[in-house]
Amino acid sequence: MKVLVINSGSSSIKYQLFEMPEGKVICSGLVERIGMESSILSYKYLRGEEFKEYKTTHGIADHAQGLKEVSDLLTDKEIGVITNPDEIDVVGHRAVHGGEKFAATVLITDHVKEEIRSLFSLAPLHNPANLLGMEVAEQIFKKAKQVAVFDTAFYSTMPEVAYRFAIPNNLYEEHGIRSYGFHGTSHKYVTEQVAKHYHNNHLKIVSIHLGNGCSMSAIANGKCVDTSMGLGPINGLIMGTRSGDLDQSVIFYLVNFLGYTLESVNELLNKKSGLMGLAGVSDMRDLKGLIEKGDKHAILAHQLYSYRIKKYIGYFAAVMNGLDVVLFTAGVGENDPFTRNQVCENMDFFGIELDPEKNNNKERGIREINKENARVKVLVVPTNEEKEIAEQCFTLLT
Amino acid sequence: MKVLVINSGSSSIKYQLFEMPEGKVICSGLVERIGMESSILSYKYLRGEEFKEYKTTHGIADHAQGLKEVSDLLTDKEIGVITNPDEIDVVGHRAVHGGEKFAATVLITDHVKEEIRSLFSLAPLHNPANLLGMEVAEQIFKKAKQVAVFDTAFYSTMPEVAYRFAIPNNLYEEHGIRSYGFHGTSHKYVTEQVAKHYHNNHLKIVSIHLGNGCSMSAIANGKCVDTSMGLGPINGLIMGTRSGDLDQSVIFYLVNFLGYTLESVNELLNKKSGLMGLAGVSDMRDLKGLIEKGDKHAILAHQLYSYRIKKYIGYFAAVMNGLDVVLFTAGVGENDPFTRNQVCENMDFFGIELDPEKNNNKERGIREINKENARVKVLVVPTNEEKEIAEQCFTLLT
Repeated sequence: MKVLVINSGSSSIKYQLFEMPEGKVICSGLVERIGMESSILSYKYLRGEEFKEYKTTHGIADHAQGLKEVSDLLTDKEIGVITNPDEIDVVGHRAVHGGEKFAATVLITDHVKEEIRSLFSLAPLHNPANLLGMEVAEQIFKKAKQVAVFDTAFYSTMPEVAYRFAIPNNLYEEHGIRSYGFHGTSHKYVTEQVAKHYHNNHLKIVSIHLGNGCSMSAIANGKCVDTSMGLGPINGLIMGTRSGDLDQSVIFYLVNFLGYTLESVNELLNKKSGLMGLAGVSDMRDLKGLIEKGDKHAILAHQLYSYRIKKYIGYFAAVMNGLDVVLFTAGVGENDPFTRNQVCENMDFFGIELDPEKNNNKERGIREINKENARVKVLVVPTNEEKEIAEQCFTLLT
Repeated sequence: MKVLVINSGSSSIKYQLFEMPEGKVICSGLVERIGMESSILSYKYLRGEEFKEYKTTHGIADHAQGLKEVSDLLTDKEIGVITNPDEIDVVGHRAVHGGEKFAATVLITDHVKEEIRSLFSLAPLHNPANLLGMEVAEQIFKKAKQVAVFDTAFYSTMPEVAYRFAIPNNLYEEHGIRSYGFHGTSHKYVTEQVAKHYHNNHLKIVSIHLGNGCSMSAIANGKCVDTSMGLGPINGLIMGTRSGDLDQSVIFYLVNFLGYTLESVNELLNKKSGLMGLAGVSDMRDLKGLIEKGDKHAILAHQLYSYRIKKYIGYFAAVMNGLDVVLFTAGVGENDPFTRNQVCENMDFFGIELDPEKNNNKERGIREINKENARVKVLVVPTNEEKEIAEQCFTLLT
């Protein structure tokens, strides 16, 4: 079964083609800067055991043109991997926000699209782009089954006590204002890897996803019970440009005493805060470069970043009344021993103790980095949201 | 030394007269509903070993009239406790917000008043009323030394990593936007009681103040290292009418999609949220009445209330890397075994285990309620902010 996984953003389409159930990647790539004059289309395709890369830069007017060009590459006589778009059996779409309507992966129907549209206000940046990707894919891969995999589905097991806010009931009951969570597909994938690794589905896991966006989830007995993100994607952990948790009084103060508009506060908290606001850079690699030079703002920014993660480890250990595994995943989580060390330092009260050598080891794949006798296992677990989506499509259809 | 402690609110003056250093209360009372037609003035005075009460209801136009009437009662021939206002040696004022300017108790000078005025924007409800109380007291108790005890002073030991937000640096550096904390005088008093109780000033303490306002503080080695409240008094724990922590996206959602004004959101989060928003009542006793009747909203409200406290216990245990004492104080904390039990239930991972009999015991005074062999001591500690203020005045002046 050939499953094409699509992650459609506001000006980009990320794609990856899998042969399932083997999970073999046949090709992958990205269409970037859609709608601009210098759009970039990249394409990595398998030849023998090796991936080759093709890249082109030219104007790509919209998502329809972008995906059509991807389809043309897939079926290209020289560098293609299939001969006809109809060979694609399934297109699996990442869908960010399923609200309370989707607790599982579904076949995309007109009704499903209508529901996704009705959730635009909950994910104004993501859902419209996701839906656009679905509609374009239906036109180009006419014979394929279209499947939506919701990021929020993983959180459908959270108890009410974890997802409700202490605001008037009608705001939840009539308007769906609650915590929904994000990065669910990633947290699901990595926690399942841990369960497989230990042949144990009864663990209390804190999953730490540190990428451009950052979030943490608490998973007990294979079910998510709490998460750091809420209704939108700005709270919880400190991110590249997002503030994470913030006393709401700050918003009122900025507007009432410093003359900000609410819109500019929203932009401030989304795009000018986090590491960027504290240290002037949003990328962890740049931040570490500054730290090595002794930049005080960068040092403080990283301390705050790690401190917040520590707090959530404590938070989640409290609501699970226990802790077996702490896992790090995504770009920073998988590749930055410095951050992992800062987070795990002085956490032996919880049974968390890193082995410095294992932490600094650059080997790939799932691996333990805790001291041998530590009570809590600390793991690095590579995430793979695309593979998780492909697997969910395969499971749904077989 | 006679110390009159005054807590001046926007329409009330709470007062208590101490003989120091004994800490003996000579009289106490409250002027309520100042500015209304039916203001209430209450006065409890010591006669022999007993307190007698006097109460009157009539129009009290302003704080000046209110405090003058208090002074008249203090010196009344029949029910007074002194013969002349000049017998008051010190007036100790509760001051809510000292910003970063006051890390300690100070004699009130014109300069101090100017500084308190400059902090009005940080505490728009409290600081103007506090300052008014100072100015009125200076007129009435002309010979007394006037002292300001800042609620925020207790938090001056917090490390930067605990009080900074992940927003642009200039908002802190130029505008002082950071976490300041509240209920500091209470947290200070009760943690000092614990240190005395165990003759040990090297404990890791989580202090839980549950009154009308609710907050938690982490204290290591006698110094506050973190707190649940931030720039303003609405975040952190769930309170009677305040939401506590809330994903900031909710604010943007209410304004952008549901048509709220920002001012009405502010009011919503301050006055219509918390227990009130979830269950329609703001008082814990009323909430428990509803819970006993099986009211589902009330049950959920209390679950959320307790869950939030549990989270902060975990949070603070993480940043202190340990936990020796959890203490409950203030109205709900001192008097509600049900809430204490809900908070401490399923927390044995942290070493927290309540003894049900000790928890339900209604005896007064500082007392342990943990199981005998539990790793963490859980205590009920009666708070006494007025006494703490009187003691700080006495210490400053001797």
